[in-house]
Amino acid sequence: MDLKALIRTIPDHPKPGILFRDITTLLADGPGFREVITRLAARYQDAGIAKVAGIEARGFILGGALADRLGAGFVPIRKSGKLPGATIGHDYELEYGVDRVEIHRDAVSPGERVVLIDDLIATGGTAEAGLVLLRRLEAEVVEAAFVIDLPELGGRRRLETTCPTFCLIAFEGH
Amino acid sequence: MDLKALIRTIPDHPKPGILFRDITTLLADGPGFREVITRLAARYQDAGIAKVAGIEARGFILGGALADRLGAGFVPIRKSGKLPGATIGHDYELEYGVDRVEIHRDAVSPGERVVLIDDLIATGGTAEAGLVLLRRLEAEVVEAAFVIDLPELGGRRRLETTCPTFCLIAFEGH
Repeated sequence: MDLKALIRTIPDHPKPGILFRDITTLLADGPGFREVITRLAARYQDAGIAKVAGIEARGFILGGALADRLGAGFVPIRKSGKLPGATIGHDYELEYGVDRVEIHRDAVSPGERVVLIDDLIATGGTAEAGLVLLRRLEAEVVEAAFVIDLPELGGRRRLETTCPTFCLIAFEGH
Repeated sequence: MDLKALIRTIPDHPKPGILFRDITTLLADGPGFREVITRLAARYQDAGIAKVAGIEARGFILGGALADRLGAGFVPIRKSGKLPGATIGHDYELEYGVDRVEIHRDAVSPGERVVLIDDLIATGGTAEAGLVLLRRLEAEVVEAAFVIDLPELGGRRRLETTCPTFCLIAFEGH
């Protein structure tokens, strides 16, 4: 199945010159969405995954489905102030300014095998921050997984230096 | 399986006197999460569901897994300004102020059978707004489904006047 053909490109979003890769058209296609989850589940089926950690918000859609397939728990990594229990957080730099992600302190137990998932890796800043949080909880992060890679932005190469990284689809140009 | 026992209650969150029902402990429990999705999937398995519409953000976790089980597409209903394509939106009243949800114009085709899903129904305002959007796209909303109902807040009773509504767990007191 040509998953790439199911992803819509929106030119000049969110600003002029950017080709925005919109995964919602793939998610809305029943067979396409199932194929994405089937490929990811096949990859991690025998990896002893205890938790799937999804990054807010589109990582929740993929992570929920993957956790269900694997019989694993789902753990949300959220923007600041969104989680109700005791959290740890990590600040990371954006092009302009700073952002922060948080995770519940008790979301993962030491040694638990975890897959980190998001829909897309661009510069990799958010994924790297999620990885920091999971490792502070002493999770064993088996891999970081993404549907879409934008190789020109270098996030995958950067993340690979610290964690195995898997992407289903790459788009040249961004 | 006692799903209710897997939900954590956080007293005085987000303000004094509120018992916050935290679903993340249920989601993080592999068998518990799978049981939730199994019950929902059993309910809609033979209902000819084309799309599962999940409300941002926790509805994405459940909705992604349910769509995958049903072989349906997943459609996000998001807060204002988050969707990249052409949208329609609906404003709804909060206790103090107004909020807005949006959906892609092409997310659902007329006549498609849809389940609307979120983790929890309180006053039902967000769910009702999501329902308005789906119906403006001429979806046939088969049911609105929630894991947690807070009956004292009346959202379920209110939503039921316009759409079949299903909840897995009810908590008295809020």
